[in-house]
Amino acid sequence: MPRLKGFKKLTRVDDALALFLEELRPTRLGIDHIPINEAWQRVAAENVSAPSDLPLFERSAMDGYALIASDTFGASEFKPTLFELTEKDSVDKGEAKQIWTGGMIPKGADAVVMLEHTSKTEGGISVIVAVTPGENISKRGEDIKKSEIAVKAGTRLLPRHLGLLAGLGITHINVVRKPKVALLSTGNELVELGQKPRLGQVFNVNDTILAAICKQIGAETINLGIARDDLEKIKDRITEGVKQADAVITTGGTSVGHADLVPTAVNNLGKPGVIVHGIAMRPGMPTALAIVRGKPVFILSGYPVAAMFGFEVFVRPVILRLLGIDDEHRPMLKARLTRRVASPLGRRVYLRVRVFKERDEFFAEPIRTKGSGVLSTMTKANGYVVIPENRNGLEDNEAAIVYLFDKIGDK
Amino acid sequence: MPRLKGFKKLTRVDDALALFLEELRPTRLGIDHIPINEAWQRVAAENVSAPSDLPLFERSAMDGYALIASDTFGASEFKPTLFELTEKDSVDKGEAKQIWTGGMIPKGADAVVMLEHTSKTEGGISVIVAVTPGENISKRGEDIKKSEIAVKAGTRLLPRHLGLLAGLGITHINVVRKPKVALLSTGNELVELGQKPRLGQVFNVNDTILAAICKQIGAETINLGIARDDLEKIKDRITEGVKQADAVITTGGTSVGHADLVPTAVNNLGKPGVIVHGIAMRPGMPTALAIVRGKPVFILSGYPVAAMFGFEVFVRPVILRLLGIDDEHRPMLKARLTRRVASPLGRRVYLRVRVFKERDEFFAEPIRTKGSGVLSTMTKANGYVVIPENRNGLEDNEAAIVYLFDKIGDK
Repeated sequence: MPRLKGFKKLTRVDDALALFLEELRPTRLGIDHIPINEAWQRVAAENVSAPSDLPLFERSAMDGYALIASDTFGASEFKPTLFELTEKDSVDKGEAKQIWTGGMIPKGADAVVMLEHTSKTEGGISVIVAVTPGENISKRGEDIKKSEIAVKAGTRLLPRHLGLLAGLGITHINVVRKPKVALLSTGNELVELGQKPRLGQVFNVNDTILAAICKQIGAETINLGIARDDLEKIKDRITEGVKQADAVITTGGTSVGHADLVPTAVNNLGKPGVIVHGIAMRPGMPTALAIVRGKPVFILSGYPVAAMFGFEVFVRPVILRLLGIDDEHRPMLKARLTRRVASPLGRRVYLRVRVFKERDEFFAEPIRTKGSGVLSTMTKANGYVVIPENRNGLEDNEAAIVYLFDKIGDK
Repeated sequence: MPRLKGFKKLTRVDDALALFLEELRPTRLGIDHIPINEAWQRVAAENVSAPSDLPLFERSAMDGYALIASDTFGASEFKPTLFELTEKDSVDKGEAKQIWTGGMIPKGADAVVMLEHTSKTEGGISVIVAVTPGENISKRGEDIKKSEIAVKAGTRLLPRHLGLLAGLGITHINVVRKPKVALLSTGNELVELGQKPRLGQVFNVNDTILAAICKQIGAETINLGIARDDLEKIKDRITEGVKQADAVITTGGTSVGHADLVPTAVNNLGKPGVIVHGIAMRPGMPTALAIVRGKPVFILSGYPVAAMFGFEVFVRPVILRLLGIDDEHRPMLKARLTRRVASPLGRRVYLRVRVFKERDEFFAEPIRTKGSGVLSTMTKANGYVVIPENRNGLEDNEAAIVYLFDKIGDK
């Protein structure tokens, strides 16, 4: 094994995250009180209880006629029972009242016979089935009862949650304030998008990627721009970042070669500074996790793919905690690998894969990579597989859990 | 089998969609030219080709020293080779130049030896491994070559696509204009959220739900409010909708009981009007698909869960086509049902399920439902299973494909 200059010891992913969370103890951010029509994708800050039963009254579950169930007993296709139609607000013995799906059950009625099981007669209807009391009726509180929890604290509000809130007549909700994340790119080789690079310079892609990922998870970003490889400049920007934001992400300047510029800058800003530096993962080995003035500072690789996995593994869980979410699993599935892949023992490898479906089976094709700088490997992938530290690869046709970035493509 | 009053014949889901698409022939909407930093979740309108190689120059894939590979031949831990360090822009025989990950390879050098395989000596370094030409070098164009397609037309732009565009120095992109969808709720029993319902009235939840679902898929909504069960009023609103929007969705007033008010209104507005009415699906049977002035009008059930599945099955594919997306699969997976479920032959049933993972196996628990009005069944579910028309249920422990609404919960 080669010596790992600068990283005397690599920390395992789980240990690094546990250590960092233990030190940081991230707590849920404050509250925004907003209309539910603006709450899509926001996170409920508190349990929301039903202010009343839903439905508030007995409703018909079908188009048909409300009547007294016992009046239909014995009815059949061969021996229909006749009912008198009423327009009153209540139903008496021998009477039926037309009702549409969702309509309020009139007083006296205890069942609904479906339109399909009736036919019109002069002044009334004939019914060809017997119904039991309660049949085709949505009971009061059947959907949710008064004081039951409609939406739990920590719920990401999706269309169906908003629908339930609307059904209960709830117009506003307390959601968790959006976390603010400050993004800083470091490196003398970087130019901002839109500028003209000189030979040897590259565009700053990490800010673009990380801003979009933050948006996806429900955080806002503050762009701190590019800092040259200069200790004081980096310190100034990070100081600015922790002042303005709930978390800071830096990219670049964390590998051994860059003389640990960013970790040094962070350590210069006071205790506790860097908590972990050098993770037994690939990509993302030079990731460092730090705390400055109580705020998390994530020091990620300058290589975009490594930065993305650094975000996935360390930043995401912290932002979720700031949002008051215990755990939010990516969509995942089981798929068979289309070929063997090797991985080094003792490292957790995040393998980019392309999942596809053939007939009703799912397969995961490992993307051939040449390093964590190659962005096109990420556009070819739609998910990743975790190869644990105690494996030195995965076998051809082995079933593995794939964490999906998003949708699944067909072959 | 009961007679299906009003629906003489139910059309199968696939036939209904095919018929409708054939008649509608939806085409991609126009183009917005926007900065890539605002393009997250938008859809690329055209293929985007790489304007140059990426990387534009040979870069080091490691921290280490650039040198001439043949100079290292024979080097080993027991017999290190010595190199002279140079600060020049080029490397000559016997020389090495320090380089960081991502740095440009100096002229003359054809390999990089990793920092870990070297140690400093007086005025130079000693190297303990042999490297081959090209080793630890990212070739020009390795990520993507000039003129290759970086992002295909119809791609939903996710963080990784934006990263690749940024890496190529692309600042702006042509995306498909956001489809505008007009939402109309019908029904005398409805009140708007925020108003005080009288006994027998219910809140309009469909607008809230559908607006959020539209946002999710990348469409904007126009709220046409609530129309009473009045033919002329409904006609006016739909006319307004097809004027302002690319598609109209109505909810309510489509079941047999409401006397086909909305379908009648649509047919009154001119040919071709209603294309299909009555689908062999559950929930969502009374769905109708129509065309007014060349625009799609989706006439969905007033029951929220049925409206959501109506959207999923018919609206979504049309909106995707307006966005220029051929197909966009929800995240899906295979899971075992935790109990048997029955379904009627000849109907396609959309079964709400809650997927959970136990050890490394996925299970889908069918949600017990009492009708398509019960919103809490949707908040308990995180996906759905399709029971095909030729099955009368699914068996306990049967493996089924689950389409995920979003994340997966643990038990």
